[in-house]
Amino acid sequence: MADIYKTYPQDRIALREVGLRDGLQLTKSWPSTAQKVEWVNREYAAGIRYFEVGSFLPADKVPRFADVRDVIAAVDAHEEAHGIALALNQRGATDALATAVGEITVVVSASQAHNEANVRRTQEQSLAEIANVVKLRDEAGKNTIINAGIAMAFGCSLSGDVPEDDVMRMVDRCFEAGVDMVGLADTVGYAGPRQIASLCARMEKRLGDLPYVIHLHDTRGMGIANASAALDSGCRVFDASLAGLGGCPFAPGATGNVVLEDLVYLVETKGFVTGIDVEQIVATRDLLTQAMPDETLHGALAQAGPPKSMNWRAQAA
Amino acid sequence: MADIYKTYPQDRIALREVGLRDGLQLTKSWPSTAQKVEWVNREYAAGIRYFEVGSFLPADKVPRFADVRDVIAAVDAHEEAHGIALALNQRGATDALATAVGEITVVVSASQAHNEANVRRTQEQSLAEIANVVKLRDEAGKNTIINAGIAMAFGCSLSGDVPEDDVMRMVDRCFEAGVDMVGLADTVGYAGPRQIASLCARMEKRLGDLPYVIHLHDTRGMGIANASAALDSGCRVFDASLAGLGGCPFAPGATGNVVLEDLVYLVETKGFVTGIDVEQIVATRDLLTQAMPDETLHGALAQAGPPKSMNWRAQAA
Repeated sequence: MADIYKTYPQDRIALREVGLRDGLQLTKSWPSTAQKVEWVNREYAAGIRYFEVGSFLPADKVPRFADVRDVIAAVDAHEEAHGIALALNQRGATDALATAVGEITVVVSASQAHNEANVRRTQEQSLAEIANVVKLRDEAGKNTIINAGIAMAFGCSLSGDVPEDDVMRMVDRCFEAGVDMVGLADTVGYAGPRQIASLCARMEKRLGDLPYVIHLHDTRGMGIANASAALDSGCRVFDASLAGLGGCPFAPGATGNVVLEDLVYLVETKGFVTGIDVEQIVATRDLLTQAMPDETLHGALAQAGPPKSMNWRAQAA
Repeated sequence: MADIYKTYPQDRIALREVGLRDGLQLTKSWPSTAQKVEWVNREYAAGIRYFEVGSFLPADKVPRFADVRDVIAAVDAHEEAHGIALALNQRGATDALATAVGEITVVVSASQAHNEANVRRTQEQSLAEIANVVKLRDEAGKNTIINAGIAMAFGCSLSGDVPEDDVMRMVDRCFEAGVDMVGLADTVGYAGPRQIASLCARMEKRLGDLPYVIHLHDTRGMGIANASAALDSGCRVFDASLAGLGGCPFAPGATGNVVLEDLVYLVETKGFVTGIDVEQIVATRDLLTQAMPDETLHGALAQAGPPKSMNWRAQAA
C-alpha cells in the first residue's frame, strides 16, 4: 500500500512534467540520455518535483524509452523528486518494480472502442491486467503508487461522447482492481471547462480528499481553461509538458499536452504558491531546441515572458 | 441615446471580430480593401454579427485604416451586422458619425502612466474628450453607441498592478462622461482568470444587466481561460480576432487578441449557442495567409479541427 498523501499533500498543487514520456511519445527524434538527465536536473532546480520519466517497453521496439532506468536514477538522485513510469502490462510493471520509481501508471480507456484499438484488449482484460500489476507490487512488498490513467474520459475520437456515468464506473472498477489513485485524461483534447468542472465535481463527491490526476491536452486550445476549471473544482494534481510537447496522432501539427510554463502562470495567478521559477522553466526550452530541432515548441509565456511590472505570483501564507 | 439592449441582447453571447482593427494595428502588411470586404462577408456568412472595422485617423499617417469607410459600408450591407470603429479624438468621432457605423469606441486607460504614454493626455483630458464625443453624437441626433474601452484594466506594463477600485472609478467616470457602454481591456495580457472573475463580479454589481465588453489578449496563454471566467461571471460581450491577429508591441512574436475560432469552441462547449459555423471561420484564415503571408497565425482549433465524433456544440433550447 502506498502513502498517497505523503507524495501528493493536500495543501500543494502538484504539477507533473510528463514531457519525458507523453511528450516524447510521437516525436520524430528524442533527447539523448544525458539530455534527458539534464532536463530533469534543470527542472528540479526550477522547482518541479514530479516527473513522468518514460515507459517500460521492449527497448528494441521503442528505443526512445530504452534509457528509462537512467532517467529514473536521475530523478531518484534528487531528495524531493517523485518519478512516474508507464507500464502497459505485467512485464513492464515487473521491470518498473525493480527500479526506484515512485509511481507506475497503468492505462485503461473509458471507451471500449478506444481500449480495443489502443491495446488490443477489452476494458475487462485491461482491468484484470491492472489487478495483476497491483498484485505484483504487493508481492514485491513495495510502496510504489499504482495510478490508473483513464483515457478518453472527456470524449473519444472513435466512439464520440463518453457518458460521465461510464467514466465514474471505470473509476470504481480501477479502485476495485486495487489501484491507489486514478487520473482522468482528455486524451484527444475534446473537453471544455464546463465538462471538466462537472466530472471533477463527481470525482470529489466520490473520492473526498483523495487526490486524482487531470491530464489535459491543448489540442483545441482549451488546456489552460480546463486546468483553471479543474483547479476551481478542487483537483490538485496536473500533468503538463515543457513547451507543450506531445502531439496528437489524429491531428498532425496540433498542440500537445497543456504547456507547463503557461500552467505555472495560471496556478500562481489563481493564488496557489507553486515554488516553481517559471523563467527557469522557460530557459529549459533551449534543451529541446538542441535535442529536437524539428519539433514545434508551444506556449505563450515563453514568447512574452512573465509580467515585469506586476505582482502576478501567489503570495506565500 | 443608443439602444444597447437591441444591439447586445441579454440572451446572446456577442463575439466581436476585432481583427480588422486591433488585429491590424501592428502588422507589417495589411489586406486590401477588397480583402477586408471579403473577410467581413465570409465571417458574416459564418455567423459573426459584430465587426470592429478600423480606426478614424488621418489616412496619410495611418494608411492601413484609410479605407475604414469602405469596410463600414461592407458591414452595413448586411442586415444583422453591427460595425464598430475606433475614434481617438473629436475629429475622428466627427468623421465616424458621418458614416453608418453603429458604435464608436473611445479609449481611456485605467493607468495614468499608460494614458499619458499612449495618447499624451492625462486621464482627465481623455475623459473630457470622451464627453465631447458623446456631445457630438447627441448633437448629430444619432443613436450610435459610444463605448469607452478602458485599457490596462488588469495590470499595466508601465505602472504594474492596477487596483480594482481604480478600474471601477474609471467605469463611473466614463458613464458620467455620458458613454452608453464600457469595456475592460487586458491590453498586455497580464490577467489570470481569478482577477477576471473578481472584476467581472464588481461590474455586475455596478451595472446590473447592462452589457459590457471584455477585451482579452492571449499574450501569456490565459486568453481562453480568462474568457471562460468572464462567461462564468456573467459577461456576454467579447472581443476576439481571427487567428489571434494583433500582437503586443512590448513582446515581439507574442500572441495577440484571443483567438476567435477557439473562443467559439469554448462558448459552445459551455452551453451557449453562438450561431457561428466554426469551420467556416477557420476556412477564412486562408484570406489572411494570402493577404499577409508574413504574419504568424495562432489558434489550436484551426490545427486540429473540431471533434468529429462528439457533440460539442451547444443545443438550441
